[in-house]
Amino acid sequence: MASAQRIVLASRPVGEPKPENFRLEEVPVPSLGSGQVLLRTIWLSLDPYMRGRMSDAASYAQPVQIDQVMEGGTVNEVVASNIPDFKPGDVVLGRAGWQTHFVSDGKGLRKIDAKAAPTSTALGVLGMPGMTAYTGLLDIGKPQPGETVVVAAASGAVGSAVGQIARIKGARAIGIAGGAEKCKYVKDVLGFDDCVDHRDPDMAAKLKAACPKGIDVYFENVGGKVFEAVLPQLNPFARLPVCGLISQYNAFEEEKGGKAMSFLMRNVLTKRLTIRGFIVSDFASRYNDFITDMTKWFAEGKLKHRETVEEGLANAPRAFMGMLRGENFGKQLVRIGPDKA
Amino acid sequence: MASAQRIVLASRPVGEPKPENFRLEEVPVPSLGSGQVLLRTIWLSLDPYMRGRMSDAASYAQPVQIDQVMEGGTVNEVVASNIPDFKPGDVVLGRAGWQTHFVSDGKGLRKIDAKAAPTSTALGVLGMPGMTAYTGLLDIGKPQPGETVVVAAASGAVGSAVGQIARIKGARAIGIAGGAEKCKYVKDVLGFDDCVDHRDPDMAAKLKAACPKGIDVYFENVGGKVFEAVLPQLNPFARLPVCGLISQYNAFEEEKGGKAMSFLMRNVLTKRLTIRGFIVSDFASRYNDFITDMTKWFAEGKLKHRETVEEGLANAPRAFMGMLRGENFGKQLVRIGPDKA
Repeated sequence: MASAQRIVLASRPVGEPKPENFRLEEVPVPSLGSGQVLLRTIWLSLDPYMRGRMSDAASYAQPVQIDQVMEGGTVNEVVASNIPDFKPGDVVLGRAGWQTHFVSDGKGLRKIDAKAAPTSTALGVLGMPGMTAYTGLLDIGKPQPGETVVVAAASGAVGSAVGQIARIKGARAIGIAGGAEKCKYVKDVLGFDDCVDHRDPDMAAKLKAACPKGIDVYFENVGGKVFEAVLPQLNPFARLPVCGLISQYNAFEEEKGGKAMSFLMRNVLTKRLTIRGFIVSDFASRYNDFITDMTKWFAEGKLKHRETVEEGLANAPRAFMGMLRGENFGKQLVRIGPDKA
Repeated sequence: MASAQRIVLASRPVGEPKPENFRLEEVPVPSLGSGQVLLRTIWLSLDPYMRGRMSDAASYAQPVQIDQVMEGGTVNEVVASNIPDFKPGDVVLGRAGWQTHFVSDGKGLRKIDAKAAPTSTALGVLGMPGMTAYTGLLDIGKPQPGETVVVAAASGAVGSAVGQIARIKGARAIGIAGGAEKCKYVKDVLGFDDCVDHRDPDMAAKLKAACPKGIDVYFENVGGKVFEAVLPQLNPFARLPVCGLISQYNAFEEEKGGKAMSFLMRNVLTKRLTIRGFIVSDFASRYNDFITDMTKWFAEGKLKHRETVEEGLANAPRAFMGMLRGENFGKQLVRIGPDKA
């Protein structure tokens, strides 16, 4: 009987995954039932999100269970099929995980046109990482011509697409990558406007120099010190699509109760929060809607309000300081002079 | 000659403002020139943002200068006028600041209909705080019927409007306020579904109990420990309009280099950042756009990509760990079996 191989999660890593967290197993090639296809794996994609699946911390997906096959996107060839839509030799995109063979009921499999592009691109630039870049940049980042887009891991699957799409849309693309070789590739091959080496001790200053007009879109996929260098350079109304925090993944379990910003950003990611600062003048165009609705609601008695009135200008500082300590009750006012008779 | 009073910024506070940061001055009532109106102040609004104006830290507005009159929104009566649009006795909304009298060229003044509502409401529920609540909640928070909206400082000018508008829109409104009296008011008078006392040592547990279905909208106006209690209760896709961090204002200068989350949130606020986590499946409906554009760009040579290929399933863990350390270069793949011939 032919044998297959698979890798299961042997134990949950604390910090960096170690070899003993994985176990390679020899198993029989699974037998094919009715309504099933037998697949052999051509390509397995490795992606940062997998670190999260190894952990049982709450996230947007269930973790891999101990002794379960590690999850992962794959490109597979159909070896045998009891499903009319799939024929031996078809190449499909699936999620066979970390194993050589897989039996599927066909759900979620998508045929790949092997003539259009190399099949591995279905796991990269034309697959999930590419779509991550495309949707995050265009639907959240919304770069405008002439704006500056920064992305870390710029030579990686997501980052390289982000910068190139940014340039297609007329924006400047600044990459951050590790080492001179990657930076050269990002500039010379990918055509980014510039690339900063995050191993450079002057990384923050170099990034600032590369972004003389500040940063309008920061595509967040690493977190950590890169984020800290980016933050002061962000322009007002900058957009930060957050799709990963790879520098933080290994640190998750180590951080219980600490590092509040990492905790925050992990929540932003796993819960897909929208955090957006605003001041009221940003919404000046909504004034008529506001005053119409609120006046109506006020007249209908649906808007209760309460005021704390301090008497006299001289008492304004005291009232103000009290307000900061929460001593007021409702809207804090200072009566400076009598109301109109 | 009649005299007027004004309060200027005497020095910049470090931490909590202290009396010596302010100075009350007696000055002549300003004389009226052509094209000007002389106003006397009826109401001065005190608002948390003013703490920011006392500081010279970067923000979305210029700070008040030393010896300059403290800024502030006001309701004024026109005392004398050389502008045809304004007549003595008119009541106007303006920004006279912390002073009894003010000469204005009329720009930015808005007449108030003193018959529609008490004039002080133009500084509260029908003014800037109300509009802050209205736009932040409806344009960013977007509460849906049945969702849970949480707001702190719930008895205050902004918070009280937030909860009431939330209920108008069919959402549950949970307030957070300081002390039993305020909480009772929030529930019994404002009609919130519940209110939690932030002075209660079990505040976090009480908040959780008040929000059995989690929190969908957190209208952020205080920061600090309330935010920390809210964060774990946020539902996926929760929206956080951020309009203030009053618990943090006094701490700004004290925190240089520390407390990264406060730094982050201050940036969110002052730069009106949009921070929004996502995963690619959130954008499933954009798949056709994505594949059409990207395939075209790929064919045109506009999308360079690079791959690092590890050979064999057994090497997958090594490749994965290396990837987390940044050792890969481009899209990390593992070749499990041969490509299709």
